[in-house]
Parts: sequence; structure tokens; C-alpha cells
Amino acid sequence: MKNKERPIGIFDSGLGGLTVFKALRALLPAENLVYFGDTARVPYGTKSAEAVIAFSKEITAFLLEKKIKLLVVACNTASSLALEEIRKISPVPVLGVIVPGVEAALKAVPPGGRVLVTGTSATVNSRAYSKALAAAGARVRVTEKACPLFVPLVEEGWCAKPVAALVAREYLAPFRGKKIDALILGCTHYPLLKKIIAGVMGPHTRIVDSARVAAASARRELERGGLLKGGGKGRSEFIVSDAPERFSGLALKLLGIKTGKVAVKRF
Amino acid sequence: MKNKERPIGIFDSGLGGLTVFKALRALLPAENLVYFGDTARVPYGTKSAEAVIAFSKEITAFLLEKKIKLLVVACNTASSLALEEIRKISPVPVLGVIVPGVEAALKAVPPGGRVLVTGTSATVNSRAYSKALAAAGARVRVTEKACPLFVPLVEEGWCAKPVAALVAREYLAPFRGKKIDALILGCTHYPLLKKIIAGVMGPHTRIVDSARVAAASARRELERGGLLKGGGKGRSEFIVSDAPERFSGLALKLLGIKTGKVAVKRF
Repeated sequence: MKNKERPIGIFDSGLGGLTVFKALRALLPAENLVYFGDTARVPYGTKSAEAVIAFSKEITAFLLEKKIKLLVVACNTASSLALEEIRKISPVPVLGVIVPGVEAALKAVPPGGRVLVTGTSATVNSRAYSKALAAAGARVRVTEKACPLFVPLVEEGWCAKPVAALVAREYLAPFRGKKIDALILGCTHYPLLKKIIAGVMGPHTRIVDSARVAAASARRELERGGLLKGGGKGRSEFIVSDAPERFSGLALKLLGIKTGKVAVKRF
Repeated sequence: MKNKERPIGIFDSGLGGLTVFKALRALLPAENLVYFGDTARVPYGTKSAEAVIAFSKEITAFLLEKKIKLLVVACNTASSLALEEIRKISPVPVLGVIVPGVEAALKAVPPGGRVLVTGTSATVNSRAYSKALAAAGARVRVTEKACPLFVPLVEEGWCAKPVAALVAREYLAPFRGKKIDALILGCTHYPLLKKIIAGVMGPHTRIVDSARVAAASARRELERGGLLKGGGKGRSEFIVSDAPERFSGLALKLLGIKTGKVAVKRF
């Protein structure tokens, strides 16, 4: 397989990473994409660093067998906890979703402004966003807030129900009126709750979704390596570790993605 | 180790099975108990039969190494999908939580009455309760309703929040006023939401919790085999596949169980 023809590998704990898949597909229609969702072990966000690292390494090894040219870790929990370990075993470039989220937030926040990072318990406990903001030299005040019920709400397909609004208020109402300039959706599931989250926070707060920025950084990485696929229509391949029909149904219901047949790889 | 001294093994996908542990500890204070929570792969209820069977067999093999004299599958999803496969590999008796739940329900329902079974998607899709009610010769009308958000709500510790009531109404309000005689809490997490569920259903509906009935059936099984431990205070041992401190904290917060040090076994 020619280098440019090789697919981009993308993985997440479940279906949240499809928000990144969708942004990649829109920005890079010619690319071949292979998506892995670890539906047998979802969610990652309540699990330990050791577990998330072990799962991420297994999936990376599997995607490398697919001859990928770039790996996008489309899961904030895995990006927070496992990126370094993944890079150790990957001969191809590896991109996470934390740095793109930070880049996007910094465009929305004035110096001295306030950033609220929302994410899973594991992401928040890792303080990956605070560290990445500091590493980017950002002079902003950062608060991190774990919102563990957001992922199951999305997986239930209840993004527009009153329950979703009540859960969002329970987590976020204490931050309303606190002049939060940007709220980072620090989990790839959360863009599906964007409207509700924006409603709780009010018009002052810009809601930052890293999916598009992550896709743009993938394009830059491919350009840098001379690996952008020129033309034609890219193939999409979907693999999960469990329950392929459920994955397929939710991909369509929540994101309008037609997966076709979804393969199963068990670990 | 003498036969009677050997522990009772109990397992669940996470901490829900602690409701059964607690009932066993209360009924059989002299017994040694070893509890395994598969916190690396929780929840089971949204996963396939193949996955739940594979996980259950791994855990059974692990608990058999602990020289258990009886295995209690304190997870309705595993009881629904994997009991037969577990029995094939277990030389010691294996009890699930479905049949005890059915026994308890039948005491609460007159012939021709209505039973509502609540459970995870996997339990409901398996129709294990409908089949067990039919096998028990019950002349009742059965409806099954999946309530996938109940487990994450409990795991978040939000059992008494307004969100819990709203989620319960979302799932159960359509059944209010339909003369449901008994509602089976068909998941070992659900007893922690019992008050809220009872509030939605109203006074006509008896809420059936299988934990105590499961403990009683464990005692009968041990008596039958001459395996009841006579006196003394039993030991309790807790093992999880991930995040032991989190498990320990929630066991105390939600159930008042002091676990002491929780060991980790990864698969």
C-alpha cells in the first residue's frame, strides 16, 4: 500500500470519538479512515490510569496492524492518561485531543480570563488540561469539573431530554455568572450536549469543541509528512470490541453517520 | 481448609452486587465472603451476551481458585446471560438472582396480576425474567422495561437527587396507574433507588428486591449440602479489577460497608 493511501486510525472508548471522525471526514474527504470503539470496556472515564493505558496500548497495536499512517486518539481520557505510552510503541505520529482543545480555548479567552474544563473523572483527576494550558504559556485561570453522567446520557440518546438539562444544571449552575470566558468540552461525547451546556452557562461563555481543531491538526500533520491523500472518495471502516448493531444504530441516531457493517475485534 | 470454612464467592459487574453481599452478611454472619467487582469493565448491561459470558467465566475461574464452596452471581445481567455457561465450569453450586426475584414477586402478585420487570438493556433483551416467571408456572402479565441510566446514577452517588426522580419518571411514569402489582428491581444496583421508584409507582405497587431472597436461597443451598459454617465472625474480602479506592469509597457512601483494603486482580 502506498504511504498516502494508508488509513488514518482513530479510537475512542465508545462512540464519542465519532464527533472527531465526523470532523475528519468533513475536512479530509479523500482520506481512508479506520475507527475503533472499545464498546466492551466503555466507559474509560471512571477507570484507573493503569487500565486506560493497557486498553489504549492494545488498541494501538491492533490499529498499527491496519497499516495506519497517523493515529488520532479521539478520547480525552486516553489522551490525558496514555498518550506518552502510546507514542512509545507507535512508529507513526500520534495526536491527542487535549492540545487542540487548549488551542481552541486560547483563541476564545483574553489574558487573565477564566476557563472551565469539563470532562470525565479520569480526565479531570489527571489535570491534563491545566498542565497543557500552562505548557502553552496561557495566562488564564483554570477550573476543572468532572461530569460523569454526561457520557451515559449521550449513550442513552437523551441529549435533548429535560433530564439532560437538569444534569447539566446540577454540574454547571455553580459556575454560571462567574464570568467563565470559555468552557472546554473535554470529552468527545460532550459536543452532543453542546446546546444544553451553552443554555446553562449563558451567552458570555464560549463553548469550545476540540473535534474540528483536532481534525485541522491531523491535516497539518499529514501535510508536514507529505502524507495527504490527493483525491477520490475515502473509505470508512468501523470496528468495535462489542455490540456492533448498537454502535451502528447510535452512530446514525446521534450523529447521522451511516457506518455500514461494523466488524468486531475482541481483546 | 475444611469444607465449611471455605468462603462464599459473590460477583457483580461493579458495586451493585454489594446489596446482595450486605444481605448475605446480615443473614449469615459466620460465613467467610469473598466479593469480586469487575470495575474495569462495568457496566455489563449495555454489552453483548458473548462479552458478559466471557467476563463471567474469567471471574468464576478466579473465584474457584479461592476455594469457594458456593458461587452467588449477584448481577442480574450475568445471571440472565451467563448462568448456564458458569454452571458448566463450576464444580460448586451456582446461584443467580433471577429466580429469587421471581419467587419474591410471586408472593406479591395475585393470579392474573401485573408484574413490571426493570433492568439493564441486556437483562431485558434476554427476557430472562419473563422466562423464569413462565417456568415457575406464574399466571401473571409481565412487562419488561430497560432503565440504562439507573446504574450510572447510582455509581455517581446521586440516589437522592432530583435528577434521580426525573430519570425514574422518564422510564416509569407510563406505567403509573396501570395497576402494576409488583415491580421487580431486576438489577442489583436498583435497590439503592427503591424509595424514588416507589414514589413514582405509587402505593398500589409492591417493590421487589431480590437481595434478601437471594441470601435466603444461599442459606438453603448451604444447609442442603451440610456446608453452613457454625459460629464465629466471618471474614470479608473484596477484590476488584480496577480503581479499588473508588470502590471502597462508594461502598461506604452508598451502603455503609467498610471494605478495608480492596485488592486488585486484572484480566
